[in-house]
Amino acid sequence: MHDFELYNPTRIVFGQGSIARLADLVPAEARVLILYGGGSAERNGTLAEVEAALGRHHVQRFGGIEPNPTYETLMQAVELIRHEKLDFLLAVGGGSVIDGTKFVAAAVDYPGDPWHILETRGKEITRALPIGTVLTLPATGSEANCAAVVTRKSLQAKLGFGHPLLYPRFSLLDPVKTYTLPPRQIANGVVDAFVHVTEQYLTQPAQAAVQDRYAEALLLTLIETGPQALARPEDYDVRANLMWAATQALHGVVGAGVPQDWATHVIGHELTALYGLDHAQTLAIVHPNLLLERRDVKRAKLLQYAERVWGLRAGSDDERIELAIASTRAFFESLGVKTRLADYGIGAEAVERVVAQLEAHGMVRLGEDRAVDLAMSRRIVEACL
Amino acid sequence: MHDFELYNPTRIVFGQGSIARLADLVPAEARVLILYGGGSAERNGTLAEVEAALGRHHVQRFGGIEPNPTYETLMQAVELIRHEKLDFLLAVGGGSVIDGTKFVAAAVDYPGDPWHILETRGKEITRALPIGTVLTLPATGSEANCAAVVTRKSLQAKLGFGHPLLYPRFSLLDPVKTYTLPPRQIANGVVDAFVHVTEQYLTQPAQAAVQDRYAEALLLTLIETGPQALARPEDYDVRANLMWAATQALHGVVGAGVPQDWATHVIGHELTALYGLDHAQTLAIVHPNLLLERRDVKRAKLLQYAERVWGLRAGSDDERIELAIASTRAFFESLGVKTRLADYGIGAEAVERVVAQLEAHGMVRLGEDRAVDLAMSRRIVEACL
Repeated sequence: MHDFELYNPTRIVFGQGSIARLADLVPAEARVLILYGGGSAERNGTLAEVEAALGRHHVQRFGGIEPNPTYETLMQAVELIRHEKLDFLLAVGGGSVIDGTKFVAAAVDYPGDPWHILETRGKEITRALPIGTVLTLPATGSEANCAAVVTRKSLQAKLGFGHPLLYPRFSLLDPVKTYTLPPRQIANGVVDAFVHVTEQYLTQPAQAAVQDRYAEALLLTLIETGPQALARPEDYDVRANLMWAATQALHGVVGAGVPQDWATHVIGHELTALYGLDHAQTLAIVHPNLLLERRDVKRAKLLQYAERVWGLRAGSDDERIELAIASTRAFFESLGVKTRLADYGIGAEAVERVVAQLEAHGMVRLGEDRAVDLAMSRRIVEACL
Repeated sequence: MHDFELYNPTRIVFGQGSIARLADLVPAEARVLILYGGGSAERNGTLAEVEAALGRHHVQRFGGIEPNPTYETLMQAVELIRHEKLDFLLAVGGGSVIDGTKFVAAAVDYPGDPWHILETRGKEITRALPIGTVLTLPATGSEANCAAVVTRKSLQAKLGFGHPLLYPRFSLLDPVKTYTLPPRQIANGVVDAFVHVTEQYLTQPAQAAVQDRYAEALLLTLIETGPQALARPEDYDVRANLMWAATQALHGVVGAGVPQDWATHVIGHELTALYGLDHAQTLAIVHPNLLLERRDVKRAKLLQYAERVWGLRAGSDDERIELAIASTRAFFESLGVKTRLADYGIGAEAVERVVAQLEAHGMVRLGEDRAVDLAMSRRIVEACL
C-alpha cells in the first residue's frame, strides 16, 4: 500500500427532509448567497424550501450556473459577493453548481486575477469563503471533497483545481430531491460515479485490499442501482444507494494509498470544452478505449475487475479482459449513454483538435504512470470515432 | 436506508515513518503530555522516536495505562495535567491508551466528578483537550472516532462514552510499528475489528447496498490478512491492510444508515470487568452464541453473510446460517483466540454474575431492536460455558 493522508471534515447529513437542518448548520449571522443552476431548483420548489429553512438569515440568490460551470459566469457571482459583502455560500444543485461555488469561494478574496487559481490548480489559495451544499444530483462527489473543475469559454479550457479550504462545511443529501431528475441526468451520474471509481481502481496492484474491495463495492452497487434508478424514479432506497455510492466514489477512502489514473477525465474534459458534450458522455466514449489501449499495464487489475465485478471466470486472461471492457461499454449503453464520437455527430477532425488542446494545456504525460503521451492520447481518441 | 449524519474530522497519516509528521501536526506552542501503556513503547524505541519528532516542544510522559484503562489510573493523568498546565494529549499505543486519553481529555476541565462522564455516556461534555494519536496496535478503531470505553475497578464497571469533541486531531498509522506485537495482540485485534464490523452488519436489512458491501470488504480482508499477519509479522502490506481494515471498521462509513447491535460488546465488557479477560476474548466467546440466539431476527443478513463472506451456497437456509456461524467461531479459534468460557477456567457461576452486572448497569434492553433482555442475555452466557 502506498503512503497516504486522509482528511475530510465535511459533515454529511443524509436522508429525507435533511434541508431542514440548514437552520442550525448555517451560522445565524451569516450573509448567505444561494448559488444554483437552471430553473429546475426554482420550479420544483427546492429553492423555496431552502429559503424557508434558512428562516431569518440574510439570503440572496445567484442562478444560471451552467453544466460545466464557466469562469465568465462565476466571476459575476464573485462581483455580487464583493458588492453585497456576503460571507457564506450555499450551493443548491449538482456537481457543476458545487464546483462553481468552490471557485467562487476561492476567488472572492484571491489576490490578483482569479484565473490564476486554475492555472496553478489551486495550490496558492490561502483563503476561501465557507461553503455548504444541498445536493440534488448524484454524480460527481463534489459535495464531499475539495476539488472542482471550471471551464473558461473564451479559451475553450476546462481545468481542475482543489484545496483543503474548499471542503464544504456540510452537505445535505436528500434522495427524494433526485426523483424529478430527467433520465439523462441520472444515467450521466451513474457513468460519472462509475468512472470516478475505475480511475482509482483500474491501475496497478498496490496490495490495498480494503480500497480494492471498497471500489468493487461501489461498482457493484452502481451496476445494480443504475438501471433500477431509471426504471423506478421514486424508489427511495434505490435513489439513496445511488446517491451514497456517487458520494463515496470521491469521498477519499477509495483512492487512499493507491495509484490514480484520471487520463479518461482529462481527455474527456477537452471533448466537453470543444464540443459541449456532457461530462459523462465523454467518459463513456473515452474510458473503454483507454482501458483497451492500456490493457497491458493495467492487466492484473483488469483481471481482478473481470472476476470480482463482472463475475467472469471462464476463458483466457485476454478473453476475460476484453469481455470486462466490453461489459463496461455495454453497461454505459444500457443506461442510454452512447459510447462513440460518431453517435454525437463528431468525426475524425476531433482527433487533432483534442490532441492540440491537450498539448496547449500541458496534458502530455497522463495516467497513473505518466505514460499517456500525446501519441497515445491520439490513438485513444482515434479509437473513439 | 436509515437517515444518518457522518462527520469525522480526524486527519489520518498512513505509512512508514509517519511519526516524523508530529513536528508539524502538534502546535508549536503546545505543552504536550504523551500517554502510553506498559513498557513496550519505551523498550522498542517508539517513545524516543516520538519525542525526537516533537523536537523542541514541551513534553512530559504519563505511562502505565492498562489494557481496559481504569478510571483510577486516568485520574492520576488528569491531576498531572492540571498541575503542570499541559494542553495537548498525545496517545502512543493501542485502543486502551487512546480510549483512556479521550477520557482524560474530557475530564480535565469537567465540572464536578468526572465519573459523571461515564454515567451520562459523555452527553454533557462541553470541552476537551485536543488529542493526537500514534497507533501501535491495529484493533479498536479508536484512532479515528470519538468513542471510548473506560473501566472503574472499584465498581467492576466497564462503560462506554463518546462526544464529537473527542475526535483525534490526527492519527499516525505506521504498519511497521506493529511488527513487534505479540501474536496474542495481533489475534485479538483481528477479532475485535471483525466483531466491530459484524455488530454493524449482522442486524436487519436496511437496503444499504454500499454499507453492506463495505462491511463485507472488511470482513473478507480480515479473514485473509489475519492468518498472514500471524505467519509473516514483517510483511508490510499485510500489516498495512490489517491496520487499515481495523481503522475502517469504526471510521463511520460502515455503520452509517444501518441498524447497530453492540450487544456482544456490552455482555463482553461485563466479562472483562468481572474476570479480566482480554476484550477480544470476550467477543470471541459471546459473539457466536449471540448470533445463534438471534438467528431468527438476523436471518436475512446471516444468509447474506454466509454467501458473500464465507461463499456458502449449498444446503438449506438453516444449514448455511449454522455453517456461517460455525465458520466465524472457527476463524477466531484459528487465530488462537478461544471461544468458550471453560477455555479460560470460568464456570457456570459466571451466568448469574454477568446478568447481575448487566442489570446493575441498566443494560436490560440490548441489540439493534432492544430485544435482548436479561433473560436472553442469560441464555447467551449459558451457551458460552
